[in-house]
Amino acid sequence: MPVRLPPPNPAEIFPVPGIQIGIAQAGVKRADKDDLTVFLLDSETVVGGVFTKNRFKAAPVQICESILNAPGGANVRALVINTGNANAGTGDSGLSNARLICAELAKLLSLNPNQILPFSTGVIMEPLPFEKIIKALPAAVKAASSDVWAQAAHSIMTTDTVAKAFSQRVSLGAASLTITGIAKGAGMIHPNMATMLGYLATDAQIAPELMKPLALELANSSFNRITVDGDTSTNDSFVVMATNKAAHAPITSWSTEDGQILLKALKRVSVQLAQAIVRDAEGATKFITLNIKGGQTLEECKKVALAIAHSPLVKTAFFASDPNLGRILAAVGYAGIEDLDQSRIELYLDDVHVATSGSRHPHYKEEDGQRVMKQEEILVTVDLGRGGAEDTFWTCDLSHEYVSINADYRS
Amino acid sequence: MPVRLPPPNPAEIFPVPGIQIGIAQAGVKRADKDDLTVFLLDSETVVGGVFTKNRFKAAPVQICESILNAPGGANVRALVINTGNANAGTGDSGLSNARLICAELAKLLSLNPNQILPFSTGVIMEPLPFEKIIKALPAAVKAASSDVWAQAAHSIMTTDTVAKAFSQRVSLGAASLTITGIAKGAGMIHPNMATMLGYLATDAQIAPELMKPLALELANSSFNRITVDGDTSTNDSFVVMATNKAAHAPITSWSTEDGQILLKALKRVSVQLAQAIVRDAEGATKFITLNIKGGQTLEECKKVALAIAHSPLVKTAFFASDPNLGRILAAVGYAGIEDLDQSRIELYLDDVHVATSGSRHPHYKEEDGQRVMKQEEILVTVDLGRGGAEDTFWTCDLSHEYVSINADYRS
Repeated sequence: MPVRLPPPNPAEIFPVPGIQIGIAQAGVKRADKDDLTVFLLDSETVVGGVFTKNRFKAAPVQICESILNAPGGANVRALVINTGNANAGTGDSGLSNARLICAELAKLLSLNPNQILPFSTGVIMEPLPFEKIIKALPAAVKAASSDVWAQAAHSIMTTDTVAKAFSQRVSLGAASLTITGIAKGAGMIHPNMATMLGYLATDAQIAPELMKPLALELANSSFNRITVDGDTSTNDSFVVMATNKAAHAPITSWSTEDGQILLKALKRVSVQLAQAIVRDAEGATKFITLNIKGGQTLEECKKVALAIAHSPLVKTAFFASDPNLGRILAAVGYAGIEDLDQSRIELYLDDVHVATSGSRHPHYKEEDGQRVMKQEEILVTVDLGRGGAEDTFWTCDLSHEYVSINADYRS
Repeated sequence: MPVRLPPPNPAEIFPVPGIQIGIAQAGVKRADKDDLTVFLLDSETVVGGVFTKNRFKAAPVQICESILNAPGGANVRALVINTGNANAGTGDSGLSNARLICAELAKLLSLNPNQILPFSTGVIMEPLPFEKIIKALPAAVKAASSDVWAQAAHSIMTTDTVAKAFSQRVSLGAASLTITGIAKGAGMIHPNMATMLGYLATDAQIAPELMKPLALELANSSFNRITVDGDTSTNDSFVVMATNKAAHAPITSWSTEDGQILLKALKRVSVQLAQAIVRDAEGATKFITLNIKGGQTLEECKKVALAIAHSPLVKTAFFASDPNLGRILAAVGYAGIEDLDQSRIELYLDDVHVATSGSRHPHYKEEDGQRVMKQEEILVTVDLGRGGAEDTFWTCDLSHEYVSINADYRS
């Protein structure tokens, strides 16, 4: 598979009964760009979300959290998403600007403002041009249609080069359910890179109390494998919506057979979205899967994966297709496992056994490492030789293009 | 001051009585390069060292630590340093290769092998061509001279673009002491970048038991402010030598007046060396001082400084002279201070007050930020508004050149 995926085929991105999406041009940053997206949710929809752990939470994130965590529960009926400005580092005026937008949309839809979740992505610490957004809201609402998910995947993009949308159908008994998700994010080669927004919807019937833990579990199995708790942008948000339209027995536990089938399908789409973000990472030329095994705990595996994934030295070696694999061993060494025994480490590049007992494998040949490093997809396996824990993460390389994109982002 | 310093003027780098240095060409990686450096220490010299905390310690680091930590103390009389190969990730054969070199040098100098500290820097996980080094040892010993510190600063370089050497004279009563140091390292824009080697010598009389804590204290006030504990290369080493040749009352405590004078001078040279490494960082175009104040603890200040210093997004913004200062606030937000109150954060670029109470300062003008960002030296001040702790770190930007250097390092 090439690193970059082709854009989604709209014919394969299915509408989700109970959800309409409207897109408009507010001119937040520049004219002639779809930069305003509104989700309209039918009244039985239940919603769960997970948000950035950054202490600098953007204004819209603060509002989303207060709505979804309200005692008595939320009754969310719409989402409003703008690109071009993150409304982060904007203090009290940022909060009131976001609230003005929600209030205006509530008026248009005859809702209460606390039934609307706002999202923003773009430049940090500049005032949100809320008047432009408010002015474009009626057009977005008027344009609302059920079959524009692929376009919505476009309209939430910032530095993304390709839209990210995936759909899946799944049968529960006689009922056929739809799961459709879109996401944006392209700077995720380091967890602090850029805002990730993800929206996953299904017409399944799911008990409201399952939605928050569901959002958390899906994020942990997908987006949190390309990023890390506490190390996220000011605006990262992932929202799961279930419209309760499908004709099947409601899911009230994930441990039932139906629950397992549905959860697996939801995870699959979440992982597709997360991997699509890595594949579209700024300047990425390689898609790298890190399989860390032999840890005493999952936490150890994660530390090692992230030390490798965040090392600019390792990432530039992947970019250069240079099997300078000592850089990976060095990253394992400083990952923070205090009692790590370097003489137990095994390292593989795909099927090539590079290092054994912590040093170069006697049969390792540079040309074998080189062959794997030249691929667009590379599996790095590290066996820590300490226990039975194993985990998988996804990352990419660091290229000239990355520096260009981030040096020029605002110009 | 421009980011890159001029090469040291040999006339200003003073010999240290009691130390001779020999340089030779072993052809470790390529011919026609000075890649072997030997320090010969007079018999009263006392030595202290600090070494990488990476769990993957290079073979020479393991040997240095075992010699310096030996019960009964060490009696170090020589150092041997090669570039071109790090002898890291090389397992038992790496250890025995380094020991063969020490044994050969011991034979040449009529010493015991455990009186010799070995150091290597260069590519990781490739076998050390120890025969080449052993073959060149006699030439290095024969060339030994007291007045070649500036040349030695050259001969320990790898990807450095400029040699790093500083000298200072200091008077203790009637005695005039010399302090001279050299260092190499150019990849330190992130702590895991590349090997740092530092050698600091004085003819002062210092009690042997003070040397290990001295090395630690000097490293903490200099090299550890451009790097971080536990996040270092496989080979990082810093060695302090006192030849005990000068005619003054021996220093037996740092709290005496003489102790304070000497310690201050030693720190000054250490900081000059550390800052020279940042100034020569791979691809660096800006020298950035991070002053973090208002923390509850020094540890908090360090977390914030390192989050800023390690953010590729912040670093590329400095490279582009783009006052995209929200990226700094975002880094503060994910630095790991759980109860951080974003509404108390103040941010300054030099004297420009950029953010107040966690959001854009009402009088901040983009052209003022732009003016500072265009400078080659930039002071970033973050006030956390939580307490009285304050600390300073040094870093640089992330440029195209950095990617080129690290992508091409071995080719």
